[in-house]
Amino acid sequence: MPTILFAAGPALWPEYQHCLPEALAEAGIKATILLETLHPETVDYIIFAPGGTVTDFTPFTRCKAVLSLWAGVEKYVGNPTLTQPLARMVNPDLTEGMVEYVVGHVLRLHLGMDRYLQDGVWRNHILPPLARERTVAVLGLGELGRASAQALAALRFKVAGWSQSARDLPGVSCFSGPDGLDKALSQAEIAVLLLPLTPDTTNLLDARRLALMPAGAAILNPGRGALIDDAALLAALEAGQISHATLDVFRTEPLPQDHPYWRHPRVTVTPHVAADTRAGSATRVLAENVRRGEAGEPLLYLVDKTRGY
Amino acid sequence: MPTILFAAGPALWPEYQHCLPEALAEAGIKATILLETLHPETVDYIIFAPGGTVTDFTPFTRCKAVLSLWAGVEKYVGNPTLTQPLARMVNPDLTEGMVEYVVGHVLRLHLGMDRYLQDGVWRNHILPPLARERTVAVLGLGELGRASAQALAALRFKVAGWSQSARDLPGVSCFSGPDGLDKALSQAEIAVLLLPLTPDTTNLLDARRLALMPAGAAILNPGRGALIDDAALLAALEAGQISHATLDVFRTEPLPQDHPYWRHPRVTVTPHVAADTRAGSATRVLAENVRRGEAGEPLLYLVDKTRGY
Repeated sequence: MPTILFAAGPALWPEYQHCLPEALAEAGIKATILLETLHPETVDYIIFAPGGTVTDFTPFTRCKAVLSLWAGVEKYVGNPTLTQPLARMVNPDLTEGMVEYVVGHVLRLHLGMDRYLQDGVWRNHILPPLARERTVAVLGLGELGRASAQALAALRFKVAGWSQSARDLPGVSCFSGPDGLDKALSQAEIAVLLLPLTPDTTNLLDARRLALMPAGAAILNPGRGALIDDAALLAALEAGQISHATLDVFRTEPLPQDHPYWRHPRVTVTPHVAADTRAGSATRVLAENVRRGEAGEPLLYLVDKTRGY
Repeated sequence: MPTILFAAGPALWPEYQHCLPEALAEAGIKATILLETLHPETVDYIIFAPGGTVTDFTPFTRCKAVLSLWAGVEKYVGNPTLTQPLARMVNPDLTEGMVEYVVGHVLRLHLGMDRYLQDGVWRNHILPPLARERTVAVLGLGELGRASAQALAALRFKVAGWSQSARDLPGVSCFSGPDGLDKALSQAEIAVLLLPLTPDTTNLLDARRLALMPAGAAILNPGRGALIDDAALLAALEAGQISHATLDVFRTEPLPQDHPYWRHPRVTVTPHVAADTRAGSATRVLAENVRRGEAGEPLLYLVDKTRGY
C-alpha cells in the first residue's frame, strides 16, 4: 500500500480531499494519503505544486516520483535535491481550457471586438480580413500548442507553428530552430506564446524579435511571463509596432498593482486563468501514474530535467 | 449579350465597378452593365439590395432574375411587384465571416472575457466550465446556422440546433417545430439567432421563451433585429433572467442614439458587422447565376416567396 504525500500546499487540499481518494480507488489503488509526515523515508509519491510544503527532497529516499499538479515545472525543476523522477501534469481538461482561451482571444483580436465593448458609436463597415487572410503564429508545439494550432487552423486561420525541434502538423506551416523563429514571427499578425520556460526561452520575445513582426501585430501570452522581455514589449506598444498584448502570465503573480501593464490602454491582463488544473481530471492522471509506478510500468509525462520540461 | 442593372444603390457601386465585370468575364459572360436605365424592358438581370434604386419591378418585363447582394431579403420579398425569380446571396466569405463572429462572441460570453477588459483587479480562479459542459443553442440551421453550429461543436460545445423543419447535423442535437424550440431554449446557456425574418419568426424570442432559458443565459443575435421582442429582452435583462445580450442587428439601423441598448451595462451593440458581403466573392456568385440564367440552367439560392427566404 503506497504512501502519498500531498505536498502541493494546504490551500489546494480542500479541492483534492475527496476526488484524490476516489480516483485512486477507481484505479484500483489503496493508498495512505498524508498532508505532512515525520517519516519522509516512508513516502512513495509526492504530489507537488509551486508554493508546496517540500523544499528539500533529499530525505524522501524511497520516493518513486514527484507528480506535478501543473503543466509548467520551471519553478522547481532546477532544485538540486529533486533527484526523483518528476512528472508534469498533462490532461485533456487543461488542454481544452487552453484551446478555448487561445481561440477566444485570437478571435477577439482578429475581430477587433474591444472597440465595440467600449465606444457606443455605430461605425459602418470596418470589416476585418477573414481568418484565412490572417496569419497566427503559435510558438511552442507541445500538448497545448499543438491543440491550439489545430483549432485555429480548423477555423481557417493561416497558422505558422514554431518549436525548438522540427515538427509536422497537418494544416500548420511548421518552423523550427532560431532562423525558423524569425521566419514565423515575420509573418505573424498575432503571436501566441505556449512555450515552456527554460534558460533558452527566457526573454525569447525581445526587442529584436518584436521588431520582426508586421507593424501593428498583437501578442497573446498564456504561456509563461518571462518568455517576454517586458521593457521591450512596453516600448514596442508605445511605438505602435505592437498594437495589443493580452497577457495571462507574469514574472510576479499576482501582477503587482503598480505594474504598467495594469493601466496600459493596449494591454489586457487576465489573472492566470487561461487554463487551470481541474482537480477532477487531474486526480485521474495522478492515480494513473501511481498505478503505473506500482505496476513497474513507465510513468507518463516525465520531465527531461536537462531540457527543463 | 445580357443587360444587367446594378440597382443596389450608388453607394455600393465603387466596390463593385471593377470586380463585377471581371467576375462576369471569368464566367464567360459578355454583358452590358447599367446603373440606371430609361428602358426597363431591356433589362435581363437586376442586382439588388435594400435601399436600392428600384421600388416597382413591374416595368422589368424581360428580367430573368433579381439577384440579392445580401443573405436576408425580408425587406423586399413581400414587394407585390417583384414577380421575377429572386435569388439570395450565399457565399463562402459570408459564411466564414459569420462563423468567426459567432464562435468569437460565444467564446467571449463563455469565458466571461469582458470582466478582464474592464476591471484591473487580479481575481483568482473564477474558472468557467469547459465548452463540453456548456450548451449553446443555434436557432436557424440554414447555411450560416449549420456552419456556426458545426464550428461550435468542433470546439466541443454541446450544441442544440433548431429549425422550422427537421434537420440532421453530425455533432448537433437537432430540434424542430414549436415544441422543439421550447426544448432547445430550455437547455441553452447561450442562444445564437440565425433565422431568416418572416412573419413566423418576428418576435420569436418573446417573454415566454426568454423565461424558458436557464437563469443567467446569454443571447447572441447576428441574425435579424426583429427576431427579438426588444421590450421583453430589456425586462429579462433587468430581472437577471438574461445575463447578457450581444446584438448585431436591430429593427432600425443604425441603432438610434437614444435606444436603451446603447448604454445598457449588459448589452453589447455591434454595428451590423457579423458578416458582410464582400464584393470579390459576391460577384462570382452573381456571375454564376447570370451564366446559369443565360444557359437555361436552374438558378442558385432561389427564394421561396411564400416562406420568405
